[in-house]
Amino acid sequence: MKHTFIFHCLMIICCSCFAQKRALVFQTDFGLKDGAVAEMKGVVYSLSPDIPMFDLTHEIPAYNIWEAAYRLQQTAPYWPSGTVFVSVVDPGVGSDRRSVVLKTKTGHFFVTPDNGTLTLVAKQLGIAEIRQIDEAVNRRKNSGASYTFHGRDVYAFTAGKLAAGKITFEQVGPKLADSVVRIPFQQPVYADGTVKGNIPVLDVQYGNIWTNIDQQTFAKMQVKPGEQLKIMIYKGNEQVYSGIMPLANTFAAVPEGKELLYLNSLLNVSFAVNMGDFATRHQVKSGPEWTVTISRP
Amino acid sequence: MKHTFIFHCLMIICCSCFAQKRALVFQTDFGLKDGAVAEMKGVVYSLSPDIPMFDLTHEIPAYNIWEAAYRLQQTAPYWPSGTVFVSVVDPGVGSDRRSVVLKTKTGHFFVTPDNGTLTLVAKQLGIAEIRQIDEAVNRRKNSGASYTFHGRDVYAFTAGKLAAGKITFEQVGPKLADSVVRIPFQQPVYADGTVKGNIPVLDVQYGNIWTNIDQQTFAKMQVKPGEQLKIMIYKGNEQVYSGIMPLANTFAAVPEGKELLYLNSLLNVSFAVNMGDFATRHQVKSGPEWTVTISRP
Amino acid sequence: MKHTFIFHCLMIICCSCFAQKRALVFQTDFGLKDGAVAEMKGVVYSLSPDIPMFDLTHEIPAYNIWEAAYRLQQTAPYWPSGTVFVSVVDPGVGSDRRSVVLKTKTGHFFVTPDNGTLTLVAKQLGIAEIRQIDEAVNRRKNSGASYTFHGRDVYAFTAGKLAAGKITFEQVGPKLADSVVRIPFQQPVYADGTVKGNIPVLDVQYGNIWTNIDQQTFAKMQVKPGEQLKIMIYKGNEQVYSGIMPLANTFAAVPEGKELLYLNSLLNVSFAVNMGDFATRHQVKSGPEWTVTISRP
Repeated sequence: MKHTFIFHCLMIICCSCFAQKRALVFQTDFGLKDGAVAEMKGVVYSLSPDIPMFDLTHEIPAYNIWEAAYRLQQTAPYWPSGTVFVSVVDPGVGSDRRSVVLKTKTGHFFVTPDNGTLTLVAKQLGIAEIRQIDEAVNRRKNSGASYTFHGRDVYAFTAGKLAAGKITFEQVGPKLADSVVRIPFQQPVYADGTVKGNIPVLDVQYGNIWTNIDQQTFAKMQVKPGEQLKIMIYKGNEQVYSGIMPLANTFAAVPEGKELLYLNSLLNVSFAVNMGDFATRHQVKSGPEWTVTISRP
Repeated sequence: MKHTFIFHCLMIICCSCFAQKRALVFQTDFGLKDGAVAEMKGVVYSLSPDIPMFDLTHEIPAYNIWEAAYRLQQTAPYWPSGTVFVSVVDPGVGSDRRSVVLKTKTGHFFVTPDNGTLTLVAKQLGIAEIRQIDEAVNRRKNSGASYTFHGRDVYAFTAGKLAAGKITFEQVGPKLADSVVRIPFQQPVYADGTVKGNIPVLDVQYGNIWTNIDQQTFAKMQVKPGEQLKIMIYKGNEQVYSGIMPLANTFAAVPEGKELLYLNSLLNVSFAVNMGDFATRHQVKSGPEWTVTISRP
Repeated sequence: MKHTFIFHCLMIICCSCFAQKRALVFQTDFGLKDGAVAEMKGVVYSLSPDIPMFDLTHEIPAYNIWEAAYRLQQTAPYWPSGTVFVSVVDPGVGSDRRSVVLKTKTGHFFVTPDNGTLTLVAKQLGIAEIRQIDEAVNRRKNSGASYTFHGRDVYAFTAGKLAAGKITFEQVGPKLADSVVRIPFQQPVYADGTVKGNIPVLDVQYGNIWTNIDQQTFAKMQVKPGEQLKIMIYKGNEQVYSGIMPLANTFAAVPEGKELLYLNSLLNVSFAVNMGDFATRHQVKSGPEWTVTISRP
């Protein structure tokens, strides 16, 4: 009898110690200069001190939903199934945009206003189920008078409860239809020897241009390393750049200061200047309104 | 006999694994470009690898004690009792300012030079007890020759020992009188239909103006949502801004580019431009010398 | 029998719970605006959710190997033996620079391209052994097609396995000769009443000038606090600054706006303006090409 009891104790301890914890990953446009991020983390830590917390970035440009969407898509595949992402880029706070949790087919969770932030992960990782956050339950006590910090009182609070296992996904709130608010943009396509795509984001630290043209689409052009290509970049209908550069496997394959086309770490077509800054040199930016064409000269 | 022994073992393991750890939250004006923050964390990690460490911010403007005071007050209430805050904004390092640990009535600890940093938390959270750090005991070994990095050698070291339970609060050092160095500023007041207050800090990421006028003081004006108010902003005796704007529950309640008065996430009166930057537009800054008046037009 | 079994269970639980985990400390020039750092952390977390992860800095100026070298040297001594540092400042990614793990005589590990990044830690902490990363084993599966993010696919992956104990140091790859790629610079020396040294780095947040002149070398001049010294600063052969300032134990020992020589938190000779910015005032920067001389006026 006693032995059985002790064994049960041991099992419980083992499970508690070794349980795979759900990580919580934060993304916001709050910056790191004030206390907003620390308020969110304090709320989560108060729920459970054992939730591993990480930062994707807090430097999303203010109100830039598109970039928030991109960073989630870029990062999520490198985190295990079960990871809970909180993304708060929320220009419509206080309006009627819905607060949701998306569970993807890969088992990742995304807690966010449904304002376009989910455009890319919904497509890439697949929608398993979407639930609207029931604020009657999943909102910090006595936070009703605050109209403006849902990031802390609703999103971080709900995400923390979910990561800690204090609520199940079903307890987030009512199930919604399997669709999210989507921002339109140029999909990667190949036709008649030309590849077209979008510039979702810049590699800001180095000034490289990242496109959404994936390896498979680009492969249809059958380009060999070293071969020259003609690149045109548009903002809406206005041409911003036109130039010729080789496909290169490494930056060092071209002289310093020269331009090259390469596959970035996400295996998408990108443009760079070896030891330089392509974006600044040619005043190229990113967003849903930017398009790129690649053809032979 | 053996069973008893095993049970004791189990108890010890249980307590160790499940003990509520004390989080340690860092705030400095060091920035994130050099190794100073990582030196502090290394010192804490060397004391005990199990202390959960977090960052409030390291982007306090250099030497700005006032903003350090504000960020502590803003953030601490969202962390559980027992949390240890280390704040190192220390223009007087090497002078005779005292190194202290404040325990508030809410059970939070603040490890910092007593140079004004405690002005706001002492008032808001209440002083339970203040102790001076005894550097004969609570200072890194062989660090005596370094005159300039008390953040690492005294503050992080003492905070780490306190968070790890290696010292009790009493072992920090001798008890001091229940008062801290305070920076004077305009308290929120209502008189004759006018509310007066201070601009403690900006919402820097968005350029919103945050005042210290709390919901209760503002409520004495009995303003209804949508009602127009006259706002004047002064730096010392110089008037910097004068304008009229409505009380709004959401930014979206006014057109883009228009100004509004709202209650921020701390439930204090704030001013903003919908989708814009109030601070830059009107050259408003923050600090103890800034005051605000609100009246009917 | 049963008792013995239970005791073994207890031992295993104890060891697992209390095992000193190896911390993993990241340094890059990626900045904090995109998802690159979060991708690296996701890879490590996927390997093992129990590795404590910290950031040294991600704000190394792009491609600045020298500053990467300095930050490692500055920070590593404050972390315990066994800590694993990952440093990714890698302008030669895709070229033939070697990917290595350095184990120092102090028991610290450094996972990095061998491109000069190890110049200072190899000298200060001593080389115990260097191994080349065997990418056939220590590289993320299916990451072969990505030419440009070795930080995620090789360095973070290998460091994570090492920190988690999934591979031993020997399993990193083949042992190399005990030497690293070194960047040349002016060593601290004393001769004929003059001390010479290098400016490895600025104290960027405050604009103070940090030299590599250690306390022992400087002590040969036998300067007393308050004594005036003549300082000359050169970039290559060009003189950038010449001035006279006292040795001071604290910034407050000189009036606001005045210059002083002091020993910084690493006990190296440094120059500052009390409540000001020396680097901006005199256009002084840092790097292997900068030298300093100190003599009596």
